[in-house]
Amino acid sequence: MDIKDIQLKLRNFAADRDWEKFHSPKNLSMALAAEAAELLEIFQWVSEEKSYTIAKDSKEDLLAIQEEIADVFIYLARLADKLDIDIEAAVHEKIRLNAEKYPVDLSNGNATKYNRRIT
Amino acid sequence: MDIKDIQLKLRNFAADRDWEKFHSPKNLSMALAAEAAELLEIFQWVSEEKSYTIAKDSKEDLLAIQEEIADVFIYLARLADKLDIDIEAAVHEKIRLNAEKYPVDLSNGNATKYNRRIT
Amino acid sequence: MDIKDIQLKLRNFAADRDWEKFHSPKNLSMALAAEAAELLEIFQWVSEEKSYTIAKDSKEDLLAIQEEIADVFIYLARLADKLDIDIEAAVHEKIRLNAEKYPVDLSNGNATKYNRRIT
Amino acid sequence: MDIKDIQLKLRNFAADRDWEKFHSPKNLSMALAAEAAELLEIFQWVSEEKSYTIAKDSKEDLLAIQEEIADVFIYLARLADKLDIDIEAAVHEKIRLNAEKYPVDLSNGNATKYNRRIT
Repeated sequence: MDIKDIQLKLRNFAADRDWEKFHSPKNLSMALAAEAAELLEIFQWVSEEKSYTIAKDSKEDLLAIQEEIADVFIYLARLADKLDIDIEAAVHEKIRLNAEKYPVDLSNGNATKYNRRIT
Repeated sequence: MDIKDIQLKLRNFAADRDWEKFHSPKNLSMALAAEAAELLEIFQWVSEEKSYTIAKDSKEDLLAIQEEIADVFIYLARLADKLDIDIEAAVHEKIRLNAEKYPVDLSNGNATKYNRRIT
Repeated sequence: MDIKDIQLKLRNFAADRDWEKFHSPKNLSMALAAEAAELLEIFQWVSEEKSYTIAKDSKEDLLAIQEEIADVFIYLARLADKLDIDIEAAVHEKIRLNAEKYPVDLSNGNATKYNRRIT
Repeated sequence: MDIKDIQLKLRNFAADRDWEKFHSPKNLSMALAAEAAELLEIFQWVSEEKSYTIAKDSKEDLLAIQEEIADVFIYLARLADKLDIDIEAAVHEKIRLNAEKYPVDLSNGNATKYNRRIT
């Protein structure tokens, strides 16, 4: 995935519509949270079991989920661009940190947050 | 960005800790929304103006923002992987749809949602 | 519940700490969403079945849930106060609207949103 | 505000439509977060300054905000009912805790979270 190219497209999209003035990092963090909640809303009355197959079972649900996933990604990419944050580097660093925080032997089958883990 | 490689790493990370059982699409949509809200929280008392420079002005804020951006990305990548959704294709399709929904001449300087645009 | 009294207490609380300047309706809507997500986070890896008894099974979880429910209420009350909106009247009006939108005979056992209901 | 009466109305509303089966605490926490995000969305491109007057300036925005505030309240009331949590008691306890955590002299004009307050 060429994320720099996507970010450039999004920057041009906003500039062409004179929307840059709306895209403060604060506002983008709101739009991102709002889109993540629209994705959440699709799953709110769906059982966990059904959630595994929802995208296979219904073309309408698949399209809705694809659209919300794209919206979350788009605002995340815009926010990172505005703040000069390298998403890929941040992700690899976070995976490294998580491996330290959740060692395999202590985390087995237990999703308790690190800071609540009873040692 | 090699998103397939990141998704594989995340899949192995979960499998190694026997966390796959927690990662239903429903639960992942919750975790994603929760992480997006942690990013939001960083900006809640910050002015729009200050939000442009927060990541330059404070190393602590930069690290916190990088970490939350990574967390959002990680759960988005996991969710897409679980549902067999190609994020990159979904993003390009959404950008195409947005270009149709928000034509340059009608959208100039106006962020009103398409469905509320007064025509 | 004397909501006017609670709103007065919260107003004084903010004024005493010179926090009124942070409490724009925009910022309060962010704080409210962030608190709702902290409540969500408690339930993210919990099964639906387990979610019914979590508050009885663990004193720690009960306290955490009580605190997050209070936080959501507090920011909702503050926001309504700032915008001169009468929560009680709005709730009764919304219950009336919902009764119109979701007639008993068409809604039986089906949580599909009104605008997606197949008629 | 007679919150017990509202909770009873909401309980009957759900029972009449055979919706109780959807209203697990887990699902209600999702619906609550989704509604809080719909409120957030109204403010996402609005300046802080404009957010103070939005409900006075536009009847359409006022109605939308009232409806979302009601939705947040409704799901909060339902969730508390399901978990046998007394919202009013939780709110008063939280206000008491906040007064301890944010003493007037240390919190003046500074919204830094307690755990990040530099002492």
